[in-house]
Amino acid sequence: MPAELIKGAEVAKLIREELKTEVDELRDKHGITPALVTILVGENPASLSYVTAKNKTAHELGFHSTQDNQPEDISEADLLELVDKYNNDPQIHGILVQLPLPKGIDETKILYAINPDKDVDGFHPVNVGKLMIGTAVFLPCTPAGIQELLIRSGTETSGAEVCVVGRSNIVGKPITNMLLQKAPGANATVTLVHTRTKDVPAHTRAADILIVAAGVPKYVKGDWIKPGAVVIDVGVNRIGKSEKTGKAILAGDVDFDEAMEVASKITPVPGGVGPMTITMLMKNTVKAAKLGAGLL
Amino acid sequence: MPAELIKGAEVAKLIREELKTEVDELRDKHGITPALVTILVGENPASLSYVTAKNKTAHELGFHSTQDNQPEDISEADLLELVDKYNNDPQIHGILVQLPLPKGIDETKILYAINPDKDVDGFHPVNVGKLMIGTAVFLPCTPAGIQELLIRSGTETSGAEVCVVGRSNIVGKPITNMLLQKAPGANATVTLVHTRTKDVPAHTRAADILIVAAGVPKYVKGDWIKPGAVVIDVGVNRIGKSEKTGKAILAGDVDFDEAMEVASKITPVPGGVGPMTITMLMKNTVKAAKLGAGLL
Repeated sequence: MPAELIKGAEVAKLIREELKTEVDELRDKHGITPALVTILVGENPASLSYVTAKNKTAHELGFHSTQDNQPEDISEADLLELVDKYNNDPQIHGILVQLPLPKGIDETKILYAINPDKDVDGFHPVNVGKLMIGTAVFLPCTPAGIQELLIRSGTETSGAEVCVVGRSNIVGKPITNMLLQKAPGANATVTLVHTRTKDVPAHTRAADILIVAAGVPKYVKGDWIKPGAVVIDVGVNRIGKSEKTGKAILAGDVDFDEAMEVASKITPVPGGVGPMTITMLMKNTVKAAKLGAGLL
Repeated sequence: MPAELIKGAEVAKLIREELKTEVDELRDKHGITPALVTILVGENPASLSYVTAKNKTAHELGFHSTQDNQPEDISEADLLELVDKYNNDPQIHGILVQLPLPKGIDETKILYAINPDKDVDGFHPVNVGKLMIGTAVFLPCTPAGIQELLIRSGTETSGAEVCVVGRSNIVGKPITNMLLQKAPGANATVTLVHTRTKDVPAHTRAADILIVAAGVPKYVKGDWIKPGAVVIDVGVNRIGKSEKTGKAILAGDVDFDEAMEVASKITPVPGGVGPMTITMLMKNTVKAAKLGAGLL
């Protein structure tokens, strides 16, 4: 029996409907409209498409959402001043600086300058630290999306053996720290494997839940997967271009066809983890608005 | 052949000698004397003995070190004000608030009020976050001591299979995050096991390096250990009292006699990890003094 698909696009739609209800209630009962500002520096086409998608979703949910475009040659000092302006603007609940930033601007410095209470990306060390301590306020969006997919697909995490492949600050490390906490949707035994791991397949084969964020197309083969495991594929790799449509052909970090024959559930690429990320950003922005109003 | 002992007391002495040289140089070349303040609230005898030991070591190394005793009934507001006074005192490099605090005082609130640049305990979320991101400034003292013991005992961590038992914020979570980083003395494949783990011995038996901070005396048996493994026992449990001397009899979280027959190296209890903790606090304080003077 082939694996069941965990359809992130559908789960994301459901969560956005829940959020829409929350936003309507916030506006009608409390006169508050969640407000997000996205800062885009330069004209990187991929970055532009990301922030456009974020703003579009924000508008669909009834947020105030502003895209603040800045020229490629903005100075670090001016960008810090801009962040500070939004930090001090009580009308703004969430601030997102789209990465990467142009050379010459210290990304870390900019991200650390964002008020942690408005850090809806969850990248500020205060928020990273609270995540590790087990008192997270804003979870980073991709790992938060992964955890939601596990919960909403009925995947038991408590006591489960989890293997996370890849130790990035955006996915691998935070999802590891989230799933090992003493908390609902967590309580798992987690092993993080990476480029220095001696025998990666030995670990992936022992996992009830396998989360792959390696950045290598089709890295995980079918026989690396425990029969019946739940597989979350975070990879998005362009492996070619369709001759017909000219569009990029995407592959995940897992050999999907092989995995379908072994896993019990799997996220497809595209349409799996991807659509969850923006939705969790929206969820964080609603939370920031509520926190700002003293409603949480 | 019985396991070799990793003598924390001796390693700690060596590091303190290195620190003493650094302190002498700081004073002679730069006119700076590292200054630590320890805040003790109430008269808990264990806490008193801990802060006394910390101040004694600080004095031996030539620090300025002040023990600031406050009454059991100090208000949270007054304690916050005291912390703030030291935050703003350029003569103070490191601030340590001895835990536990009396009921009625929010420990988290007090710890989070310490200036992260003076947080020599490494418990502030900014410092915890930087640890997880891989840009640590102040490592928490016990895990930092464990990493030093691994390095100085010639234990290869890169590519090693590490099992950490126990998910506390003071030991288990930070040492896990430290050892999985892409960094010297790290690069290990780490699994964190805890009370919800289904088969703890299966994980401990697979570990080249086994770090136990479970808080249960003699929890790890000899046959839970891989032959030739390096065992770090963080537990300090009082299991009785000597009839002769009246002193407490201590046991670690590992069955030491059994482990001696299986492991290649092991830390004794007492005299293993314990003596490292205060030493790493001193190391953090020297670092804080250097950072404060712009020397790092």
